[in-house]
Amino acid sequence: MLLEHIKQPKDLKQLSIEQLEQLATETRQFLVEKLSITGGHLSSNLGVVELTIALHYLFNSPYDKFIFDVGHQSYVHKMFTGRMDKFDTLRKYKGLCGFVKRSESEHDVWEAGHSSTSLSAAMGMAIARDLKGEHNRVVAIIGDGALTGGMALEAMNHIGHEKKNLMVILNDNEMSIAPNVGALHNYLGKIRSDKHYVKVKEEVEYLIKKIPAIGGTLAKTIEKLKDSLKYMVVPGVLFEELGFTYLGPVDGHNLPLLLETIKQAEKIEGPVMLHVVTLKGKGYSPAEADSHAWHGASPYKIESGQMLKAVGPPMYTEVFGKSLIELAREDSRIVAITPAMPGGSGLLKFAAEFPDRMFDVGIAEQHAATLCAALAGEGLKPVYAVYSTFLQRAYDQVVHDICRANLNVIFAIDRAGYVGPDGETHQGVYDIAFLRSIPNMVLMMPKDENELRHMMKTAVDYDAGPIAVRYPRISGLGVSMEEPYRAIPIGTWEVLRSGDSAVVLAVGPMVQEAMEAAEQLAKEGLQLRVVNARFIKPLDEAMLQQLAKENVPIITMEEGAQAGGFGGSVLEYFASHDMHGLQIKILGIPDYFVEHGSVPEQRKETGLTAERLMAEVKALMPRKRQHA
Amino acid sequence: MLLEHIKQPKDLKQLSIEQLEQLATETRQFLVEKLSITGGHLSSNLGVVELTIALHYLFNSPYDKFIFDVGHQSYVHKMFTGRMDKFDTLRKYKGLCGFVKRSESEHDVWEAGHSSTSLSAAMGMAIARDLKGEHNRVVAIIGDGALTGGMALEAMNHIGHEKKNLMVILNDNEMSIAPNVGALHNYLGKIRSDKHYVKVKEEVEYLIKKIPAIGGTLAKTIEKLKDSLKYMVVPGVLFEELGFTYLGPVDGHNLPLLLETIKQAEKIEGPVMLHVVTLKGKGYSPAEADSHAWHGASPYKIESGQMLKAVGPPMYTEVFGKSLIELAREDSRIVAITPAMPGGSGLLKFAAEFPDRMFDVGIAEQHAATLCAALAGEGLKPVYAVYSTFLQRAYDQVVHDICRANLNVIFAIDRAGYVGPDGETHQGVYDIAFLRSIPNMVLMMPKDENELRHMMKTAVDYDAGPIAVRYPRISGLGVSMEEPYRAIPIGTWEVLRSGDSAVVLAVGPMVQEAMEAAEQLAKEGLQLRVVNARFIKPLDEAMLQQLAKENVPIITMEEGAQAGGFGGSVLEYFASHDMHGLQIKILGIPDYFVEHGSVPEQRKETGLTAERLMAEVKALMPRKRQHA
Repeated sequence: MLLEHIKQPKDLKQLSIEQLEQLATETRQFLVEKLSITGGHLSSNLGVVELTIALHYLFNSPYDKFIFDVGHQSYVHKMFTGRMDKFDTLRKYKGLCGFVKRSESEHDVWEAGHSSTSLSAAMGMAIARDLKGEHNRVVAIIGDGALTGGMALEAMNHIGHEKKNLMVILNDNEMSIAPNVGALHNYLGKIRSDKHYVKVKEEVEYLIKKIPAIGGTLAKTIEKLKDSLKYMVVPGVLFEELGFTYLGPVDGHNLPLLLETIKQAEKIEGPVMLHVVTLKGKGYSPAEADSHAWHGASPYKIESGQMLKAVGPPMYTEVFGKSLIELAREDSRIVAITPAMPGGSGLLKFAAEFPDRMFDVGIAEQHAATLCAALAGEGLKPVYAVYSTFLQRAYDQVVHDICRANLNVIFAIDRAGYVGPDGETHQGVYDIAFLRSIPNMVLMMPKDENELRHMMKTAVDYDAGPIAVRYPRISGLGVSMEEPYRAIPIGTWEVLRSGDSAVVLAVGPMVQEAMEAAEQLAKEGLQLRVVNARFIKPLDEAMLQQLAKENVPIITMEEGAQAGGFGGSVLEYFASHDMHGLQIKILGIPDYFVEHGSVPEQRKETGLTAERLMAEVKALMPRKRQHA
Repeated sequence: MLLEHIKQPKDLKQLSIEQLEQLATETRQFLVEKLSITGGHLSSNLGVVELTIALHYLFNSPYDKFIFDVGHQSYVHKMFTGRMDKFDTLRKYKGLCGFVKRSESEHDVWEAGHSSTSLSAAMGMAIARDLKGEHNRVVAIIGDGALTGGMALEAMNHIGHEKKNLMVILNDNEMSIAPNVGALHNYLGKIRSDKHYVKVKEEVEYLIKKIPAIGGTLAKTIEKLKDSLKYMVVPGVLFEELGFTYLGPVDGHNLPLLLETIKQAEKIEGPVMLHVVTLKGKGYSPAEADSHAWHGASPYKIESGQMLKAVGPPMYTEVFGKSLIELAREDSRIVAITPAMPGGSGLLKFAAEFPDRMFDVGIAEQHAATLCAALAGEGLKPVYAVYSTFLQRAYDQVVHDICRANLNVIFAIDRAGYVGPDGETHQGVYDIAFLRSIPNMVLMMPKDENELRHMMKTAVDYDAGPIAVRYPRISGLGVSMEEPYRAIPIGTWEVLRSGDSAVVLAVGPMVQEAMEAAEQLAKEGLQLRVVNARFIKPLDEAMLQQLAKENVPIITMEEGAQAGGFGGSVLEYFASHDMHGLQIKILGIPDYFVEHGSVPEQRKETGLTAERLMAEVKALMPRKRQHA
């Protein structure tokens, strides 16, 4: 085993090319074994084994900076930088992070989780290097999917203009998570597949040379022709026109060739785009066969490639997808838009049934939002299916194009609240705060998967502006599904359990915690009223006024940032209606970034549990008596 | 006068080409005259006179959809669609909007104010059209500056993939507001200026034809060469590679040629990119000479082109720019980043003194933010100078790349609060809500221009993470500038006036309103304590605890969205520290989009004035007595 001797990148520099190839094989075995237990981003990491070896072999991390776009393909990098022994804790609470993490290693120079940031990061590091008079290399490794994100294109425009020395390695595996879409993808495909296209420049130059040196008009013509040919298309002309020197495409699993090409790239002045073609899942046949399913793998059996799936109620995502199909059968105005997450957002079956009404726009959250605005303006009912954390990318479009114009866009906000093992880069905990401050927005969250279906119906029926439903990245409660779909009156909450010791206004999954707490408290003689605050905006003002009259202690509870969240909106309501003197406690996520772990661990860490609620209710009691 | 007969687009269709050219001249006279009184976006509108005439002449608005990117170049369109008589009210309270406005006319099919949305809008309208089985044309008119915005590039990627029929008119005037930067800009310049480049395809084909038909190897060689030449570069190959048919460049002031080319473009299947070259300010020599200064013109004297400038204290923008230069002389870590607003952000002098430390990245707010993150990561002190409303575009990058990584990025947030005549698309009223919910963020706002300088020093000295200072689009108060600069202790407020009838916690320009109110109230025997809540986050917790002990009525006052704003954070603080029973009133912007007008009009409409505050204090008084 060579692998066990690789403690630091320098250990790898001692190896021969043959040994490096053996190391690649061992690395793949290691990943396939470890991830069969923990799960994780298997296929993208199998795809970059040779590339990561080549970079650490040729360059000197951390003096030279490696910037992994998204960062989920940094496992091999982690292995070679002293973290091999931590893979049993991958993506677990207090364990190894699934993304690049500065606090883990000096070799981790850029953190991400969202895509398309690496070119901006590379540019910043190159500018800083030059200002400081240093000479380190800056290398960004970006997938072809991530390259279509608007900010990556903005960065290319800047990089090509400033002409700093930096290297972009375009890791072209024809996938983001889903198969890529878009003109840029088509273009890369053309470069990859059209041999004629690839070789055209060499060929033409060769042919020109073959034209004999003859005199007269013909010679002059040919001279002029040669002159014109400097404008010949070469593969990558698009990148060349934007100021990059383009090299490639090169087979990313051919280590000698890869080393050679990177060495060549390194000698070029100015920005270089090195186009490397890799195969997601390379070396593990189940992952090679279905890189989509294997993007984020659950634990699996190595031999069969069978993933171990949790049995139990359906995920909210799945319920959303099914309800959208059923609603779309009845309402031809419904169209679905996803920024490169057709599978993750539960839309594959919708796409199969309504191919003309489904638009995967690639990694392009901003474009997706404004596209929805225009579709709504033309009388359709666009459903923007997006993860909470990625909707952050479209915040301005939500304000400026959708809410300001008050257009009937439906937001299906998945992964709202804690996301578990993906951790702090992916937590869906800011959307309540950033959406509720925008005028015209309606924002809902269901207490269970059955209510999600009725909220989708509510959204489809609502014709007065934008409306959003947020739901978590967990399974439903296993409740039965009520037929038919029914619209819920906007801005109404429901009392699920009566009581007058205190009232909890609970949002989404917190309703379940509240019900548990109420049951326990009842045993101790305390009656906790549980309200399903299913509308985060607008509030149920009638109920709030009633509560003010009763002067009962109120606790709000939400799985979202406490600063500016739902609890705050309740406080604001009372304050701006001159209802003072109420006893209100707000429970939400404290003001820090919550790291990876399981959702229950994340809830426990931040006190969003039935136990915490019980403690808070008990703590209120003496004061309540005092008050009365 | 032809102009007075143009009530609707159809009136224009009756004219001959010569008459259309006369109409262009009259249109320019109209604009130059009207805007000399009202001010407004003169130069961009003078640039699109022929283009707008051509579109209305050839197409049928509103059946055919014209989508003006940004929308500030829609004045000519407004003139031809029945709004000529409203130009005296341009950008005034309740008057004609300076941007496209759906509520003004059925011909206004897409609203904007922020750039780069038009391609997404066009795509949405094209999709909707095809789903509905209609056949209208969709035409987006976008500037070369706006084209570099990430969302426009995302949209191009989608458009080139789906191949719907739509026309993009690239209005290339070599400017966004400042001269454009970026590789795409350089590329367009090459197309425009390099005659050889433009004609290369025709030339090569011509040359090949001239090679005589001779036998043997040479003939075969030339045959192969011809075959290869289908990959020849044509102007616009970059757009062609992305799936567009490219036409141009064409002179946008040559009406017959423009009409001819648009007709030609209209016959092409799939997306067309028509490259039109225009001159900003065309036809009015002062504006032609300095299109930057004339982008948003103040009222001016027509003959001399002399703009009427307000005399008085300097704008906050100017004070920011000066202070940054002074601080940068002392601290070599400081670098400045602007997304295409070097002038608007007050950075021109900084750029002149520190050309190597100034980065105008083009319209690329997302890239700019992440670039700052990387610069900070390398130990520099990046200052991201950005308007509040445009920072919305970088919300995700602020969360994910800057605050999550807790990097020392300084945000200089200009145009925070009401922006006056630009109106609802540009109001800087959401940044408090969207920034304060992000962990690690420090957010300040100065009471006057002198304090802004000290806040800049505070920001530069602060080494514990991101820090932002927001300031308004107005003049300072004319206070004297204290030397030397001093850092303000983080999270401390200052009491500017004592009193115990009530306390106002005022943010930024609201401090001045509060001081006025306090003076008036004192005459009536009421003593209003005025606190300069210069830190929006973190709060001055010591002072809040003191206020809770005193149990004095509190009013918060901010020029920002009330939902999720500063007032809410004060309420949250008390609620989460079990300080109940306090009498608190929060004054902020109510939950709707505030339209154009002057800043005082906008404040009055929404009750952010000394008068309102006085009324609120008086209203509190009986309840205070009751409470005591």
